[in-house]
Amino acid sequence: MPLPPALLTTLHSTFPADALAIGEAERIAYSYDNSRRHALPDAVVFPTEHAQVEALVRACRAHGVPVIARGRGTNTTGATVPVAGGVVVSFERMNRIVRIDPDNRLAVVEPGVLNADLQKALAPHGFFWPPDPSSAPWCSVGGNLACNSAGPRAVKYGTPRENTLGLRAVAGSGEGFRCGTYTSKGATGYDLTRLLIGSEGTLALITEATLKLTPKPSAVRTLRATYRDVGSAARAVARIMAQPVTPCALEFIDDVALKLAHAHGGDSVPLAGAMLMIEVDGEPATLDSAVGAVAAAARGDGLEELRVAQSADETRALWAARKALSPAQRTISPNKINEDVVVPVSHLPALVDGIKRFAAKHDVLIVTFGHAGNGNLHVNLLPRDDAERKRAHACLAEVFALVIELEGTLSGEHGIGLAKREFMPLAVPASTLELMRNVKAAFDPDGILNPGKLLP
Amino acid sequence: MPLPPALLTTLHSTFPADALAIGEAERIAYSYDNSRRHALPDAVVFPTEHAQVEALVRACRAHGVPVIARGRGTNTTGATVPVAGGVVVSFERMNRIVRIDPDNRLAVVEPGVLNADLQKALAPHGFFWPPDPSSAPWCSVGGNLACNSAGPRAVKYGTPRENTLGLRAVAGSGEGFRCGTYTSKGATGYDLTRLLIGSEGTLALITEATLKLTPKPSAVRTLRATYRDVGSAARAVARIMAQPVTPCALEFIDDVALKLAHAHGGDSVPLAGAMLMIEVDGEPATLDSAVGAVAAAARGDGLEELRVAQSADETRALWAARKALSPAQRTISPNKINEDVVVPVSHLPALVDGIKRFAAKHDVLIVTFGHAGNGNLHVNLLPRDDAERKRAHACLAEVFALVIELEGTLSGEHGIGLAKREFMPLAVPASTLELMRNVKAAFDPDGILNPGKLLP
Repeated sequence: MPLPPALLTTLHSTFPADALAIGEAERIAYSYDNSRRHALPDAVVFPTEHAQVEALVRACRAHGVPVIARGRGTNTTGATVPVAGGVVVSFERMNRIVRIDPDNRLAVVEPGVLNADLQKALAPHGFFWPPDPSSAPWCSVGGNLACNSAGPRAVKYGTPRENTLGLRAVAGSGEGFRCGTYTSKGATGYDLTRLLIGSEGTLALITEATLKLTPKPSAVRTLRATYRDVGSAARAVARIMAQPVTPCALEFIDDVALKLAHAHGGDSVPLAGAMLMIEVDGEPATLDSAVGAVAAAARGDGLEELRVAQSADETRALWAARKALSPAQRTISPNKINEDVVVPVSHLPALVDGIKRFAAKHDVLIVTFGHAGNGNLHVNLLPRDDAERKRAHACLAEVFALVIELEGTLSGEHGIGLAKREFMPLAVPASTLELMRNVKAAFDPDGILNPGKLLP
Repeated sequence: MPLPPALLTTLHSTFPADALAIGEAERIAYSYDNSRRHALPDAVVFPTEHAQVEALVRACRAHGVPVIARGRGTNTTGATVPVAGGVVVSFERMNRIVRIDPDNRLAVVEPGVLNADLQKALAPHGFFWPPDPSSAPWCSVGGNLACNSAGPRAVKYGTPRENTLGLRAVAGSGEGFRCGTYTSKGATGYDLTRLLIGSEGTLALITEATLKLTPKPSAVRTLRATYRDVGSAARAVARIMAQPVTPCALEFIDDVALKLAHAHGGDSVPLAGAMLMIEVDGEPATLDSAVGAVAAAARGDGLEELRVAQSADETRALWAARKALSPAQRTISPNKINEDVVVPVSHLPALVDGIKRFAAKHDVLIVTFGHAGNGNLHVNLLPRDDAERKRAHACLAEVFALVIELEGTLSGEHGIGLAKREFMPLAVPASTLELMRNVKAAFDPDGILNPGKLLP
C-alpha cells in the first residue's frame, strides 16, 4: 500500500533526498531483522535530529500510518519487522556520543551509537556501560534500550533498566518529551524512563539517552568448570549464586553447544557434559579470595575439571567460542528458534532436566547455553525441515509451560516482538495485560507505533 | 463529609469491626504524616489480605470516594495526608514476611513490614535489602516503595527501583494485578513495577512486593574527613565519585548541622566547616586498598583532618549523630522545611555555595546534610516565626531554580506529595507531565487514588 501523497510531501520536506528511501531495493534492506521474518515497509527514513522524528510521527499519525523504530535489526524476535507496512525509522545516522561526563558517571548518546563504539569511547575514562549483548559490535544502544538487552555482565551489573538515567523521546502522539534525570537518584514523578526501556518501540521513539556509567574494574579472572552432565552444572550455578561473591559473568554451555563451540574455537574449548564459564572482577588484591569463594561453590557432585584460564589467549578463545555460538547454529538450522527463557536460579536444574526430556520426547535438537547467573538460558531449537519445525513448536510450548511453572518468564533479554506475542497470556495475567494496553493508549492513542508487536 | 451509607455497609462486610475505624479520635491518628500537615479521613481501614483491598477500591470507586494508601506516615511531603477526605488504608497489619529465598536472592513481603524488621530477618541469611532511610526502624517497605525512599547506601546499592523484582497491587480501577518477575532479568512487556515505585499511591495500592536481595559485605570501614568550609567538602565529594572505588555511604554534613549533631552525639562529632562520613565495604582483604583510594580522593585543598574511625563505638556515635539530625532540627523549628534536592555530583560545590548565599540573602537558618555521593542534599530551612517562614519560601524558590539550572531535580528520595507539587513544572516539562497524567488515567480512570498529590 503506497503512502498517501500528502504524507510523502511532508516526508520530502522533512528529510533530505538521501535520508528518505522509497525504492524497493532499499526498502527490502529494512524489511527484516535477525528473526529472519520479512515484511516490506512503505518507506525508510534516516533522521539526524530529534525534530525530524517529531515531524515524522505527527505526519504519520495524521494519516494513520505505522511508524517502526529500528536500531540495527539484530534482535531475534521480529520486533523491528514492519508487519503492517508504514515507515521504518532507522536511527543509524543519529549516532553521536553527545557527552561523556566521567565526573558524574554518565554519558549522553544518540540511539544509533553502536554498543561497542560506546564502550571504546568510555574505556580511556576508566568507565563502561554494563549492557553487553553478544552482538555488541553491530547493535545500537537504542536497540538495547528498546529490548532491555543485556548480556553476560548483567548478573553483576544489571540490564539497561538499571543503567539508564534519562531519555528524550517522541510518543505515538507526536509529542516530544524528556524523562528521568542526570542524577543517580530521583523521586520526581512517575518513572517513564524504565517504562520505555523494553517497550520495543511501541510507546515512543527514543532520540537521546543519558546512560549511567560504571567504573571499569581493574582486573578480571576467568574460570572454566566442566561437569559430567547439565544437571550437575545447573546445581553448581545455584550454589555459586547463593554465596556472597557475585561473578561478573556466569555462563552455562550444554554438551551440544560445547561440541559446536569446540568445532569453532578449537581445543581450548573442552568437550564435556556441560561447562560453566565464570568471571570475577575487581581490584587485583581481591581476586584471590573471590576466585577461592566461587571455586568452592563450583565444586560438588559431577564436577570433572575446574581451572583458572592460564592466559589472556585462553580467555579470549573461551569467549570467542561462547560468542560464536549463536551464529554457529545457523550452520545446522537456518530456521533456529531462539528463546531466552529465565527462571530463578535454584530452579535451573529442573529447567535443564525438563529441556533434555522435551528434546527427547519431541525428537528435536536443542542447544542450550546462556547467562545462568541470572537464570537466563538461551534455548535454541534447531529444526532442519518442516516436520521437525512442527515438532519444535510443540516442544517449545512445553518449555514455556515449564518455565512459568518454575516461577520464570518468557524472556530475559530478547523481548517479545512477534515471536512470543501469542505466549504473553501464559506469563502475564489478563488484568496486567489490560493495564499494559491502557499504558500503550496513554502514549500512542492511535496505535501507530510498531503495531502487532509485544501485546497480544 | 460522611461516607455514603451503602459504602459503609460494604466496608462493614469487608472488614471486621476492629479493622475499620470511623470514630474521630482514631481518624485523627491517621490524618497527618511527618510533614505535619493535617486532614481528616472519613474512615480508616486495616486490611490483612489482598482481597480486602480489591473490594475496598471497587466500592470506593463506585461511590467516587478517595482511597489513600498509608505505610507508617514517616514521609515528609504530605503524601499520605487525605486532603480530599476518603478512606485511609493503613497497611500496618499486612506485615508478614511471606518468604525469604536466599538461593534466589529474593524476599516476598507484605507492604506493612518495617524496613528494620526486614533487615533483621535477612541478616542470618547473609543478605540485606539496600534501601535504608534514616527512619528504617519505623517506616514500612510499602512506604519505601511508594516514595522510592533510599538512604545512605543508595550511592553503591541503588534505590527501591533497582532493588525490586515484582509487585502485586490493586489499581484505581479496582483490578488486582501482578507485575514483574521472580528473576533478576526480564523483558516480558512493559515495566509496571518501576512505574509503581515512586508513584506515591496515585496509580495503585501495593499489597505484596518481591524484593531483590544483596549479599551483606563482610566488613566495613568508616572514615571521617573534616574541611575548612562546605565548598572544600563538596569538591572532595566530586573527586571521590570520579574515582573507581564506590563508597557504600558518602554523607555530607555542613557546619550548622555539625553543631546540632555535636550537641546530640557528643565529642565524637567534630566541629568544623563541613564533614564527610565515608564508608567502604567489601571483603576484609580489599578494604585497605579501598580506604586508600577513597582517602586519596578526599585529600585536597581545605581538608583539615582525615581519620578512620578507631572503634565500633566511634562509628556508632557518628551514625547516631547523623541519623538524629532530622529529628534534632525540630528543637529549633517545629515547622522545618525539609527538602532533598539532587544534582550531578560535580555540581555540588555550586549548589552548596548557592545555598549559603541564599541563606544569607533571605536571612534564614539552613541546615544542609545528606547523601552527597548521589548529589542528594537535605536542605532544611528552619523558620522560627511567620516572618521567617515567608522568607524561607522565597529562599526555597531560589534553591529549586538553582537546582534545575545545575541539571538536578526536586527530590532524590522524599518524593513530591503535597509539598513540591506546585514546583513540578519547574522540573518536568509540560509534555512529560501530560504523559504522566495519561498514565495516571490508565491506572486510575476516576482519579480516586490519593487525589491532590504528585501531579500539579
